[in-house]
Amino acid sequence: MKLLIIGAAGMVGRRLAENILKTGTLGAHPVDALTAFDVVPADLASTDSIAVTVKSGDISDQATVDGLVTDRPDVIFHLAAIVSGEAEADFDKGYAINMDGTRHLFEAIRAQGPDYHPRVVYTSSIAVFGAPFEEKITDTFLTAPMTSYGAQKMIGELLLNDYTRKGFFDGVGIRLPTIVVRPGKPNKAASGFFSGIIREPLAGLDAELPVEDDVRHWFASPDAAVGFLLHAATMDTAQLGVRRCLTMPGLCLSIAEVLEALREVAGDDAVARVKRVPNETIRTIVAGWPQDFAPDRALAAGFTADPDFPSIIRAHIRDTADAPS
Amino acid sequence: MKLLIIGAAGMVGRRLAENILKTGTLGAHPVDALTAFDVVPADLASTDSIAVTVKSGDISDQATVDGLVTDRPDVIFHLAAIVSGEAEADFDKGYAINMDGTRHLFEAIRAQGPDYHPRVVYTSSIAVFGAPFEEKITDTFLTAPMTSYGAQKMIGELLLNDYTRKGFFDGVGIRLPTIVVRPGKPNKAASGFFSGIIREPLAGLDAELPVEDDVRHWFASPDAAVGFLLHAATMDTAQLGVRRCLTMPGLCLSIAEVLEALREVAGDDAVARVKRVPNETIRTIVAGWPQDFAPDRALAAGFTADPDFPSIIRAHIRDTADAPS
Repeated sequence: MKLLIIGAAGMVGRRLAENILKTGTLGAHPVDALTAFDVVPADLASTDSIAVTVKSGDISDQATVDGLVTDRPDVIFHLAAIVSGEAEADFDKGYAINMDGTRHLFEAIRAQGPDYHPRVVYTSSIAVFGAPFEEKITDTFLTAPMTSYGAQKMIGELLLNDYTRKGFFDGVGIRLPTIVVRPGKPNKAASGFFSGIIREPLAGLDAELPVEDDVRHWFASPDAAVGFLLHAATMDTAQLGVRRCLTMPGLCLSIAEVLEALREVAGDDAVARVKRVPNETIRTIVAGWPQDFAPDRALAAGFTADPDFPSIIRAHIRDTADAPS
Repeated sequence: MKLLIIGAAGMVGRRLAENILKTGTLGAHPVDALTAFDVVPADLASTDSIAVTVKSGDISDQATVDGLVTDRPDVIFHLAAIVSGEAEADFDKGYAINMDGTRHLFEAIRAQGPDYHPRVVYTSSIAVFGAPFEEKITDTFLTAPMTSYGAQKMIGELLLNDYTRKGFFDGVGIRLPTIVVRPGKPNKAASGFFSGIIREPLAGLDAELPVEDDVRHWFASPDAAVGFLLHAATMDTAQLGVRRCLTMPGLCLSIAEVLEALREVAGDDAVARVKRVPNETIRTIVAGWPQDFAPDRALAAGFTADPDFPSIIRAHIRDTADAPS
């Protein structure tokens, strides 16, 4: 089986690749080739059983994306995106990558002709929803995004559904919760502080909290995200019908509850490192995001959430200890 | 005031232009210039008070659309579209005109810079909704299109909302009901038979009915559609917030009720000219469309529906008598 990961140098994409390289399989199928694509070369190497090809380039260029599917990968993971904060700040870049880049991939697949019908796993976002919200967002709640990122992700969902309905490929869209704890440095996502208020105190650093303690949000760990991607790549899609995009299961916690979980795992000193620094721009963006979900379709389709928030924090501590210094 | 109508040779666009040329105004404002654009030249001429410029071209070409806004029209009506049946049959053409063409217009406006902020009236469609439906589609019902046309129109709505939110223009999207009675020859819309079963019998011709008598649908007259466009161009948009696209008010009737209205206006002989010729392709497309709506936001914003279906038929009979032979 041949795989393609677009966005393989990103946090989730790289973790997905490492999982596949370690197990050597995708579901029940042995994997023999993996192309890892991103805007920068991903730091991945071939194993005894899997030949890894690392490529880099810009998906806003159709020819670049065409070149990724000429060897007809069986499964394509599309994780590449300009994150929410940057897509809001750079209108052209957000549309070029998140909308045009996604369409270029779908067109590249279609251009291979009717005898090519890969599974396409597309990472969407809960940013496709916009206020006013109901208490728990159900699977039939209106998708009315309030950011450019959300609009771009929703356009990708509409294209994925339509290309799948027309038989050009077999698409599954997964709306990821906010991923915590992101390792490394902060990125430009407006949601970055949700990781920062865990990651920085654990590293003995101060972290800024730009929103109120009663803000609720929807979380999943990096490992859960990899689990969603693997399941989306191998599940029976017949049960999805024409609505191919699903909100993934997550954990709903307030900032206060997140800080209590941090206290449980790392003590009062860690919590004391979280400094309240209100930021109106981030507050406004986050206020346009939903807080809690009833992801019934995804649960029925076999996607599973993290057990609880302390588990997410402990997994991050393990990952950090394992990481090369 | 300067106006631009894109799609001015179409049935609704031309009727809109004729209305403005006749009254000389848009709302309270005198109109002095009107550019009428379509893929073919619209048959429109200047009046004493309004200078009409007729242009033709292809909106899938960015430069063509750029050229339409260099004189900075105050209000832009965007009605150009590949209709549902043709967009389903010709995937590339549908996306090129309905998605790319719409985006080209929005980008052309944005390229004029921050001191240009026109009102943009975009015609969307109830095809943005997809089954399964609730009994009456409310303003917060999920937009999950089941045709390429519906997906393209929905992408236009997402772009309109986002460009408006970012301050690039002042957009209003109106989801038109199915317009009856369309004059002239059938077009390639899958909904064409809804007009055909009125228009052809009134002209002494047989008409094919491809769906069952119990199919319900959502209708407005050409005059009501022009009324929606004029109101969208002149209304106070502050009340709309960030959700700029509204389902327009219409009449909900079953095919059986439509035929009873035809009988009331034109007698049994007219109804007898409607021949039942089931067509599975059209039945499938129409089954993916909603049947009844509760368009509360549009009603609150001052949009008004036709009074009843016999009025729609009688207006068509008057139009036909007025038309040059």
